[in-house]
Amino acid sequence: MMRNIGEGSRGLGISYRRDYEKEALIVYDTLRVEFDVVFFIESSQPFDNLPSARAVIVVGGDGTVLRTLKKIQLPVIGVKAGRLGFFSSYHVNELEKLKFDLLNWRFREDRRWLLKVECNGRILYALNDAVLQKDVDQKIVDFHVRMQDGTFDYHADGLVISTPTGSSAYALALGGPIMLPNVEAFEITPMAPQFLATRSLVIPSSENVVVNASDPVNLVVDGDVVAKVSSIAVSKSEHEIVLLRPLEYDFSSSIKEKIGYGRRILNGY
Amino acid sequence: MMRNIGEGSRGLGISYRRDYEKEALIVYDTLRVEFDVVFFIESSQPFDNLPSARAVIVVGGDGTVLRTLKKIQLPVIGVKAGRLGFFSSYHVNELEKLKFDLLNWRFREDRRWLLKVECNGRILYALNDAVLQKDVDQKIVDFHVRMQDGTFDYHADGLVISTPTGSSAYALALGGPIMLPNVEAFEITPMAPQFLATRSLVIPSSENVVVNASDPVNLVVDGDVVAKVSSIAVSKSEHEIVLLRPLEYDFSSSIKEKIGYGRRILNGY
Repeated sequence: MMRNIGEGSRGLGISYRRDYEKEALIVYDTLRVEFDVVFFIESSQPFDNLPSARAVIVVGGDGTVLRTLKKIQLPVIGVKAGRLGFFSSYHVNELEKLKFDLLNWRFREDRRWLLKVECNGRILYALNDAVLQKDVDQKIVDFHVRMQDGTFDYHADGLVISTPTGSSAYALALGGPIMLPNVEAFEITPMAPQFLATRSLVIPSSENVVVNASDPVNLVVDGDVVAKVSSIAVSKSEHEIVLLRPLEYDFSSSIKEKIGYGRRILNGY
Repeated sequence: MMRNIGEGSRGLGISYRRDYEKEALIVYDTLRVEFDVVFFIESSQPFDNLPSARAVIVVGGDGTVLRTLKKIQLPVIGVKAGRLGFFSSYHVNELEKLKFDLLNWRFREDRRWLLKVECNGRILYALNDAVLQKDVDQKIVDFHVRMQDGTFDYHADGLVISTPTGSSAYALALGGPIMLPNVEAFEITPMAPQFLATRSLVIPSSENVVVNASDPVNLVVDGDVVAKVSSIAVSKSEHEIVLLRPLEYDFSSSIKEKIGYGRRILNGY
């Protein structure tokens, strides 16, 4: 029996990371009895001409979810098979729960906005971050940051410009704060800055930020090295992505579970 | 000759910190020839029944500006005689510049919003921060933070809840980020948290945050110890204050000048 899951009888897609093909096949086998699985694709393949679907189940880690979200304009349900899994609310051994939520469409939409990164006439979108980073054998770089509210200079190995979503990724590893996903701001976090300018700068999402570097540096968008650049412009884009979460999901539980921040330590409270 | 400075012929007030009475008198002598100085008051005195004024010149450090702002609903012009002076754009030896700007009313309004802090039926307002802090001889406290977006727990000596304005004050000293003044967010920064939860949490200004402590702790609002409390509620208030700045003022220059963050270090850029 094929069961259509509401809205225009559209089915489900499955995208997976190559290493997790076995797990992805288990997901497929679990769902195909009751749902119309309209595609099953390895996440590094081209996504052109895929049939539409109501949602894509992504089997893998955050990288696989990210890659899939940027290749297809559909809501995503992350099924964790990789490491941290901020973008995943289900584990590969919770497929009955997933099936139940799909059958009853018990999801909340977790919307996240993207940064628009402009460089050399290209436009790129970052869900987590845009990183400017020198090569290992390159001298420390002067970064000049310009916005409506003034200018800031950093003499550093690099700069991470991240969304609230990205605040728990690379920026966190460099000492940045944790931003709730619905904060209307983004942050700049310097990498190894001279001399003590290690703090992040939190900037309203309405700002347009231009960064100039004294030497060409690598531009890395959501983990992919994109180009050598001397200048980029960054602002909030109109694009957002949708993660489908179980109704009981909340951000704070996810942060507590994944990195332990804000988790209760002692009893007796 | 008394010169009225526009709008309804209202004059200027002067508020000063006791230690800077000499400097305040110099300000008074410099301005009284051309302006109607309607009051001259030591900042710890009661401000009841003072005549209205177009602005209050505050001679002192940030503490004096803060105290004055909270006692009188008027725009403030800070004249720095104390230490850091984030709230002051003039120094006591720049009085000719101040006079010129007053004569031509060359100011921009730097508006800052306040946090509303509710505890035990009282309402207090914080321009910089509300701090919950244990006594020195008290055991480490469990803080439970509740908001729409979930809950966070900290086992710590205290918590600092600060506005963007306060992000360059106590929260900065505890490792927090620098927030531009117009960010619509506030932050919670734990003091000496177990075990590694040292990062700040950046929260949308639309949130209502309730903090419960396992033991009564000191509530310190903008530096004043207010009460022993076990619970407070914090949200953005409708109140804002107005600092009058010279037209050429910008926040980034102030941050660079006062704490060196974002200042250009090397030449050759």
